[in-house]
Amino acid sequence: MDVTVNVKAADLLEYCKRLMMAQGLTEEDSYTIADSLVDAEMCGVVSHGVSRMQIYTKRLETGVVSNQFKVEIEQEYAGSAVINACNSMGMPVGKYAMEMCIKKAKESGCCFIAVNHSNHYGMAAYYVKMAAKENMIGITGTNAPPNIAPTGSSKPYVGTNPVAIGIPTNGHPIVLDMAPSVVAMGKVILAAKLGHEIPLGWALTKEGKPTTDPELGRQGSVLPIGGPKGYGLSLMMDIFSGILSGATFGPHLGNMFNDFVNQQNVGHIFCVLDVSKFTDMAQFKACIDQMRSEIKALPKNDGVSEIFLPGEIEQHKKESAAANGIVLSEVVYNELKELGIKYGVACII
Amino acid sequence: MDVTVNVKAADLLEYCKRLMMAQGLTEEDSYTIADSLVDAEMCGVVSHGVSRMQIYTKRLETGVVSNQFKVEIEQEYAGSAVINACNSMGMPVGKYAMEMCIKKAKESGCCFIAVNHSNHYGMAAYYVKMAAKENMIGITGTNAPPNIAPTGSSKPYVGTNPVAIGIPTNGHPIVLDMAPSVVAMGKVILAAKLGHEIPLGWALTKEGKPTTDPELGRQGSVLPIGGPKGYGLSLMMDIFSGILSGATFGPHLGNMFNDFVNQQNVGHIFCVLDVSKFTDMAQFKACIDQMRSEIKALPKNDGVSEIFLPGEIEQHKKESAAANGIVLSEVVYNELKELGIKYGVACII
Repeated sequence: MDVTVNVKAADLLEYCKRLMMAQGLTEEDSYTIADSLVDAEMCGVVSHGVSRMQIYTKRLETGVVSNQFKVEIEQEYAGSAVINACNSMGMPVGKYAMEMCIKKAKESGCCFIAVNHSNHYGMAAYYVKMAAKENMIGITGTNAPPNIAPTGSSKPYVGTNPVAIGIPTNGHPIVLDMAPSVVAMGKVILAAKLGHEIPLGWALTKEGKPTTDPELGRQGSVLPIGGPKGYGLSLMMDIFSGILSGATFGPHLGNMFNDFVNQQNVGHIFCVLDVSKFTDMAQFKACIDQMRSEIKALPKNDGVSEIFLPGEIEQHKKESAAANGIVLSEVVYNELKELGIKYGVACII
Repeated sequence: MDVTVNVKAADLLEYCKRLMMAQGLTEEDSYTIADSLVDAEMCGVVSHGVSRMQIYTKRLETGVVSNQFKVEIEQEYAGSAVINACNSMGMPVGKYAMEMCIKKAKESGCCFIAVNHSNHYGMAAYYVKMAAKENMIGITGTNAPPNIAPTGSSKPYVGTNPVAIGIPTNGHPIVLDMAPSVVAMGKVILAAKLGHEIPLGWALTKEGKPTTDPELGRQGSVLPIGGPKGYGLSLMMDIFSGILSGATFGPHLGNMFNDFVNQQNVGHIFCVLDVSKFTDMAQFKACIDQMRSEIKALPKNDGVSEIFLPGEIEQHKKESAAANGIVLSEVVYNELKELGIKYGVACII
């Protein structure tokens, strides 16, 4: 039986923020990091939630990630920019880049920004929701250390590099946030942390054998969706985030969990489209409403109560967590508590 | 046993061009259409090859597609544009849009163009290879009539809307061109035309049952890769191509094969990134070379002789077809011959 602890979202956010401030980050940057993690936790994307606090604080403490936010604009044109993140924490960098992208797209119609020398930036959906709030379409992606083997090999070369797309609507945005693998490696890592088995078909051992052991899967690889298609999507995201940006790629990315000497040099991309510069905004949203209604009204397979649009299940979970609290596993709760003791932050969760 | 006919690429191109000219298209536009179809045929993407000539000519003959190339720029900003294709053939429109996108990206770093009121534009890879030739990264996608059922339903709502990405390299470009389904509906259609069975796992009947009959699969749906992920990718491409562009979406797209009254109103998107405005071009290509070499050198699974990058197998096939001729099925060869008789074009293949 899993033991769980119920905490209030606002308390969890405040506590994570204070833990980050204890690492020397500004209140604003600490808030962004905590907000991203708590948002993921509330949306049920627990792989990118507060279970990441332990490794983030450890990386800041060892100095392998800088606790000072700094960015340098390396190139800038009407519809593009390249940002050097100077080894800052990924979330404040991601927020900065998405804000710049939104601002530039308001002028140029479309803007594409590539970021180098960054770190893990949390749940990709967080950034595209920023764009959707401004009536913009947001797209983002990042590379990550290798977890997927190219088709024909069983040795990982590319990461479970996610892509997220956010669409403004009359209600909550439509948000697709997906890894090009059957599951995100984050889910395998979390299963390992919680001592859960993983289903067959998620991961292979490093010898290329199917496994239900998350620890062996974590050391091995996760399977791409659609075979060469998922491998191809992941490779493309690595080229965008890792090579076009001037960051690094494939196996040259530092490992977040066991390398506390070398900077990771993660890359991200952000792209924003100003809907109003393509079509009439009211017309756009009316079409989205129509699409949503038509999909909801499709005949349902046996046992299906509702057909969802991307991001809708996560939004429902978020509303439920806001009303009823966030359910943390005891393992993660205790980790957070211990961080408070270690860094002298009073536990308020 | 399949009966096949071997034809020269140059002859096939010239013959298809003349067939298009017989429909009243200009020589230039006829060339673009023929070039796209023959390129697909040579690359082994036979679903988007010359087997499409029959339906293209029929649509032009009935007037449901215009034989006059016309475009109107509806909106234009530094990094974006919207083009009304005025019901022209898809390939000349696609070429026009990609050329405009390349030109604008050379100024702005990135350009994103949406096209409405268009038609089937053939193999998406064709356009991104144009960008790669100019040392640009090209991206394109299109929507298509519904073939994929949203997760939870067995009624198709979104098309097997492809996305293609082309990356310039020191050699041939890396080209990913994929439908978000286990296979493109074009492969199911071609199997139906050739009287071949399809493997289980490709398609469902309209009642949602697995099938090996391509005709039943064609009337039903094809399965998305990664379940909700493939559905989500397809939905996003429909929003970009069908709604952001001002075209139409989902089941509102006309059927290419059995509706000769209503215009299809297909939408496409094109996005170009000028690599030199992000990073040093020589450095970019050196990294791609390194990535390619490292992937090629990965340990191979049993029975695997080589690990490929996206588009590499297609490029090998193209080179082989250029040297040894294109192998057409007798069915497709006879169709082409009959088109020549019908439209008074001497058969030179």
